[in-house]
Formats: sequence, C-alpha cells, structure tokens
Amino acid sequence: STMERSASRQSRKKVVAVVGGGLVGALNACFFAKRGFDVELFESREDIRRAKIVKGRSINLALSHRGRQALKHVGLEEKIVAQGIPMHARMIHSLDGKQSPIPYGRKGQYILSVDRANLNKELLTAAETYPNTKMNFDHKLQDWNAETGLMTFVRLDGSKEQVKADLIVGCDGAFSAVRKQFLRRSRFDYSQTYIPHGYMELTMPPINGEFAMKPNYLHIWPRNTFMMIALPNLDKTFTCTLFMPFEDFEKITTGDEVIEFFQKYFPDTIPLIGADTLQRDYFRLPAQAMVSVKCNPYHIGDTCVLMGDAAHAVVPFYGQGMNAGFEDCIVFDEIMDQFNEDFRAVLPEYTRVRVPDDHAIADLAMYNYIEMRAHVNSKWFIFRKYVDNILHFFMPKTIIPLYTMVTFTRTRYHEAVKRWHWQNKIRLLVLGSVLNCLIWPVLAASALIDSWTAGIFTASLVN
Amino acid sequence: STMERSASRQSRKKVVAVVGGGLVGALNACFFAKRGFDVELFESREDIRRAKIVKGRSINLALSHRGRQALKHVGLEEKIVAQGIPMHARMIHSLDGKQSPIPYGRKGQYILSVDRANLNKELLTAAETYPNTKMNFDHKLQDWNAETGLMTFVRLDGSKEQVKADLIVGCDGAFSAVRKQFLRRSRFDYSQTYIPHGYMELTMPPINGEFAMKPNYLHIWPRNTFMMIALPNLDKTFTCTLFMPFEDFEKITTGDEVIEFFQKYFPDTIPLIGADTLQRDYFRLPAQAMVSVKCNPYHIGDTCVLMGDAAHAVVPFYGQGMNAGFEDCIVFDEIMDQFNEDFRAVLPEYTRVRVPDDHAIADLAMYNYIEMRAHVNSKWFIFRKYVDNILHFFMPKTIIPLYTMVTFTRTRYHEAVKRWHWQNKIRLLVLGSVLNCLIWPVLAASALIDSWTAGIFTASLVN
Repeated sequence: STMERSASRQSRKKVVAVVGGGLVGALNACFFAKRGFDVELFESREDIRRAKIVKGRSINLALSHRGRQALKHVGLEEKIVAQGIPMHARMIHSLDGKQSPIPYGRKGQYILSVDRANLNKELLTAAETYPNTKMNFDHKLQDWNAETGLMTFVRLDGSKEQVKADLIVGCDGAFSAVRKQFLRRSRFDYSQTYIPHGYMELTMPPINGEFAMKPNYLHIWPRNTFMMIALPNLDKTFTCTLFMPFEDFEKITTGDEVIEFFQKYFPDTIPLIGADTLQRDYFRLPAQAMVSVKCNPYHIGDTCVLMGDAAHAVVPFYGQGMNAGFEDCIVFDEIMDQFNEDFRAVLPEYTRVRVPDDHAIADLAMYNYIEMRAHVNSKWFIFRKYVDNILHFFMPKTIIPLYTMVTFTRTRYHEAVKRWHWQNKIRLLVLGSVLNCLIWPVLAASALIDSWTAGIFTASLVN
Repeated sequence: STMERSASRQSRKKVVAVVGGGLVGALNACFFAKRGFDVELFESREDIRRAKIVKGRSINLALSHRGRQALKHVGLEEKIVAQGIPMHARMIHSLDGKQSPIPYGRKGQYILSVDRANLNKELLTAAETYPNTKMNFDHKLQDWNAETGLMTFVRLDGSKEQVKADLIVGCDGAFSAVRKQFLRRSRFDYSQTYIPHGYMELTMPPINGEFAMKPNYLHIWPRNTFMMIALPNLDKTFTCTLFMPFEDFEKITTGDEVIEFFQKYFPDTIPLIGADTLQRDYFRLPAQAMVSVKCNPYHIGDTCVLMGDAAHAVVPFYGQGMNAGFEDCIVFDEIMDQFNEDFRAVLPEYTRVRVPDDHAIADLAMYNYIEMRAHVNSKWFIFRKYVDNILHFFMPKTIIPLYTMVTFTRTRYHEAVKRWHWQNKIRLLVLGSVLNCLIWPVLAASALIDSWTAGIFTASLVN
C-alpha cells in the first residue's frame, strides 16, 4: 500500500489550490511550491503589485520570531528584516507628555515594524519564482464542493471558471469564503466576537525630513477606555492607530471636536501630526471593526484546510495575528514531513495540534486588549514586569515572561499560557517569601521582648 | 408625530411575517395575531397536522412555568396542561437498580412531560383560528433583504414566491435561514458550539397496558461520562434518551454489543424496554448532534428579529429550550406594550433585555450537561440540595434554589444566576458557622485545661 501510494504520487503531481493571496496565502504558496506540488493561487482582487490603491487593512504590522522563522524557511527572512524597523521597547506616553520606555525583552531582542503592502508584494513575487506556481488574480471563490474539491470562481467580467484541486487551502481571511462550506456542516464549532472598539489610522508626517518621535519604539498612549499606538514606517512617517469604542468615535462630528478631543487626551501628538492633517484624516474613513474568530476543526476530510485569519482571526493587541498565521504554515509543513504528505493523516493532525494554540493566542490577544489600555500605565503592571525581569535574570530557564515566550520563541501558545499561570504562582510565592523576610525580624524582636509569646507564635506557625 | 404614527397605523395594518411554524413560530403567530397585525406564517415543511411521518427532533419536552405563562397569554395553558404528565421529582436509578427520588421543588411543584408534535399541532390550530393569520406551508426561505423586508421563498415544485413584510420574525430554529443574513453583516456576534455527546431516543413500551415505571417522574440514569433519561408519554410508553459521546456510540456496532452495553450500565432497563426492541431501535437512526448557539444582536433595524432556537439554541440539560423560546414571546409582547408597537424602539430594547437572559440559560444548560451526568449521584450534590431546601424552608424569600428560580418563576435568567452565586456564598457562610459551633466547644475545653493558651488564641482570633 505504501508502494501504491508513492506510485500514484509520482504518476501525477497533486494540485494544491491556495485560496487567498494575502500574507498567509502568498507565503503558503511558497511552502507548497517548495514541496513540489502544482500550486494554484486564487485571489479575488487584482494583483496588488499593479494596483493603484490598496484598500482596507492596517498599514504596518509587528513581525516577530514566529513570523521570521516562517520567512526563513522560504529564504525571505533577511530581505524582509532589512526592510523593517526594529522596535526595542514600548514607549509609554503619559498625559503630561512624559515618555517612559518598557523593553520588550532582554537587550538585543526586538520586534519589527513592517509594511503590510510591501511584505505582501515580496511574498507574491517569491511565490511566482517557483515554476510550479500559477497565480490567478481577479478570481473570487463563489462556491466549492467538499467531496469533489471542485471550486467555482467568478471574475469581474462576470465569467465563471471551475477548477479542481486535490487540496484546497483556505487563506482567505477573517471573512473566508472557503469557511462558509464548513459552517454548513454538522459538528463545526465556530464563533465570531466583535469588540466594542473600532480603530482608525492617522499619519504622523516627518519633521524636517526626520521621524517626529524616536523611531525604534512602539509608542503607546494608554487612556483606560481607549488608547493610541504608533509604529514607524521606512518613509519616516509614523502610522498612529486610535482604538476607541464606536460610540465615542460617533460623538466626534466636527474638526473642532477632533482637536478638543486630542487636546484633552493626546496633547503631545497635535503639534506632531498637525492640527490640519488630524482634522482631515479623522473623517477620511469611518472607524473599522475588529473581530475575533475561532473555529474547530480546521479541515474537512482530506480535501480542505483553513489557515491564517480564515481559521483564527485575532484582535490586534498582542501583535501576533500575522505571526500566528505564518506559524500555521510551518506547523503544517512539519506535519507534512511527519506523515509523508498523506493528507488523510496530515489534516486531522494539523487540527489536533494547532487548534489549542490558535485559541490560546486569540484569548491572549483579547486579554491584552484590556491590559494595554488600562494596566500598562499602572504602577502594579510596571512592578510585575520588573519582578518578572529580575526572576528571568536569576532563573533564565525557569521564569520566562509571557511576552518573551509569545514573541521571541516558538513555545506553543497554549503551553506559554499554561506556563504563565504556573509562573504567576511562583512569583506570588517569591513575593510571599520576600515579605516573610521583612516580617520575621519584627517577629523576632517582639519575641525577645516577650519570650513566652514567641513560643506560642512559633507553635501556631508550625501547626 | 404620535398622531401621525397612529394615523398611519390605522391606514394599513402592518404585515408580520413569522418564519418557521415550529413551537415558537406557531405561538408567536398567536401573539402577533392577538395584537391585530396581519400575520403570515411560513413553514418549509408540509403541515404536520396532515403529514404521515414527522421527522427529527425530540419526541417529548418538559414544560414549566415560563412556557405555561406564554400559553396562558393565548388561552392555551389549561388545554396543554391537561394533555401533559406531571413529573414531581427526578428518579435516580443507580447501577444496582435502586431508585431514589429528588423532588424538583416544594410539594405541589412539578414540570410537565408534553408531546412535541401534539403541542405543535395545537399551536398551529390556535394560530389559524385568528382571521388575520394566513398559514403558508411548503415555503422555504431562500433569501431576504434587510433593507426592504422582501423575502423569497421556494416551494417543492420549484416555484418561487416573493413576499414583503413590515416585520420579519425569525423562529426557524437552530439552523435558521433568517439568521444567515445577520451573519453577513458587521458587528454581529455569533457562536455555535457542538458538544461531544450525541443523543438517541429509545421507546420503553407499556407492560400489561400500564407504565413500565412510575410515571410521575423524570427518570435519570447518571453514569458520569454518559447518562440516560426517560419521560412518560400519554400512551403509557416512556421515551428514553441516551446521551453519550459520539465515539462511544460508534464503538457499538452489533445487537450483541448493545445488550452487553445496557447489561453493564442500565441493567434494570433491559427487561422493561425488551432486548429485541432495544437491538432494533438502537440502529434505527444514528445518534443526533446537540448544538449551543448564541448571538447578539437579535434584530436588524426595525425590520427583523430572531426568537427561539434561531436566537439561542441551548443543549437540552436544563429542560428550558422551549420554555425560554416561549418566554421570548412574552418578553417581546411586554416591550411592544411599553413602546406602543414602535418597531424602531421595540427591536433594540428586545435585544438589550433578552440577550443576557438567553446567554445565561445557554450557559446554565451547558453547566447542567456536566452536573446531570456526573454530580447527580454524588453525596455532595444530594447534600447541597438538602442544605438548599432547608435554607429555603427557613428563609423562603431569601434563599431560593437555582432550579426553582429557573423552573417555577419568571425571575430573569441572568438574575437567577447572579442570585445563585450570591446564595452559594451564603451557604458557605452558614456551613462555616455550623462548623464553628462544633469547633468552639473543643477550643473552649482546651482553654479550660490550659488557661494561658486560651488567652493567646483569643487574642490572635480577635486580631
């Protein structure tokens, strides 16, 4: 049977249809092409390398270890890193304009601000260099059949095209058309949760040809119910993203109200963005919604698998959306090795392995949605980061901050969460024993003064 | 403007389209007809009153206070209650055949076992008696437009029909076609969660023309990872429902294995069901899936609202699925009074009021999914029920068991849950003080023996 299988594999190269030419789709095309499959990539929009205006989605993204590992696998890491801007720390802007950095990890550890459109273009170009890859733009998936693998695409001119594949890889984002077929089947768990916040992007231009703020930081203005962040771009601008409940966005309806609002909460940014730009950019686009999507399983039989946002859209507050999607490609690739490219075994194993990790990062992103806005500027948050860093320094293999595990390692997300809970207990124990060291001398002193009391105390403590 | 509104209302009766002719749809048609709307009910299947075989869904259901209140509103309570069988207590069957009753509430409080098909027929007939109601069977909703209220139905002969309504009420169950339009819109929260268990219905025939077991109980065989329940029917049969993980259902493939399985876990039921019937019925239908559905909001603009399973399918372990759906109708009706039938105000208010309650009962049902299988036969469960009943006896207005609030009152579900958490703390306090009463004499005695020790103890307790 092994012979039969390998014989049939040699007789015809299997066709893998990657649906979606965004970041994860384009990268996945490289992964499958590298394995020798006949790869067909289908993207509903036109080729963004030829498009004049690229609609929607955030302008820049934080690339970290998991994403880099995936890029490395297809030989793109160095190139992409060279086009990114390192961010070594968060830079917290308080209301009075004071700026305080909180490092992301140890010295030398950083995340990268990368341009989404540029990265997407590089990945498409890389995919195209494989001779066994065919790119199909202006192909919108209309319907597909899970039993036969037959897909129907519609084009802008109204024409339809039918394509059959051995494996359909759904990388078509949070509102995946591939996933719709999953939803029609029984025993498919699915959830989509919108948060009450929307986001809006504003541009901070260069000042005298230089960055308006220190470039190697992810700037944060935490303001409890809302917040703003800013990431640097290669053209020396910053892209500021304002996160705020939709109802608060709706309250601001005039240019004067925009300025009033920024004057109250982000006064240091008005001279940097410029009052005119601010008033114009604020009304350019309405605030955009953010959704968290979870589902299970990720596959149907041996014909279809979901990856990236199609499988697990996360809110953007841990900077792991793209990184998790890129890691999906590595994990799938590792399982392909393990099971000799037998889709019947690979697909269920991918679901089994990857679902708990993706659900964990979705939950963490939701947790950080609160933490980033509300706790980042509290003394308790800074104290905990401080204690964690001290513990990490003395016990580098035992105590690893959660952010470090998530951002600078490939520790499985769900294991990072487990370990984090465990470490929180350890930290409490350590804090307890530190407090103990402070209390004991006091107790000892009172014992010297009143010796019979000390005897009882010891007895009660021992019991 | 009030004059204008009432003038326009008089000029034309508004059309309410109720999509779905199941329990909640048929009842809702009565509610809207009673208010004087032009009601059109659409059901995809043929009229079950004329059908020979009624497919799918459970055979009988537990009707309790909330459902009865809704039936009362349309004058059907007495009739339906007369056709139901009162169940005063759970009857727990242990492995050795021992039966122990656990009452549902105080003396005189009971839930009713009612026949789903019969109840549905009665409700359809009741809806039809209103001259302003039109029934449309064999009308399957294909698509509808949230802006215009235009719906397209397909019929078995392939013909299509378009109908426009002022309000579309989606009562078309857990896999609602109306809800699909909601899923296409932004900021709609949705989750569907399948549990690992399936269910299978088995019939326990009468013995010598009489019920094979005591009829006025809901019989339960809790077996940790799985369980069986049995509800009485008017024809003196019991409908037994076996709940078990799908993988366990799949392990049983022959008649002998069925008998072996029942011999091991439900030995007392084999002579009652009959080995032959058991072997036949087990393979009649595959085990059915159970899904929990939550969503938010329940409405779109002033044109559409979801009720019943379409808005909140729950797992069947609290016996509240139908009751919650029926209560939806009362809640909506109450809000219609409050806002003078102005859909623009009624629909958002309905979402605001009802979502937290439906989510609470969905969570409770999921909680009971574990409790019924695993805890019902534990000493701790029985002890807690016992303590609750004692507390309820002495403080009938302060301590009300959760089951009582859910089943025998119209306390809002989410308030019942809140109160339950609060009561659990009270119970702990009471238990603590009872323990305290037992401990103090011991302490006092040791104090008498060693008086100086007692002084210190008191000091440390006071501090």
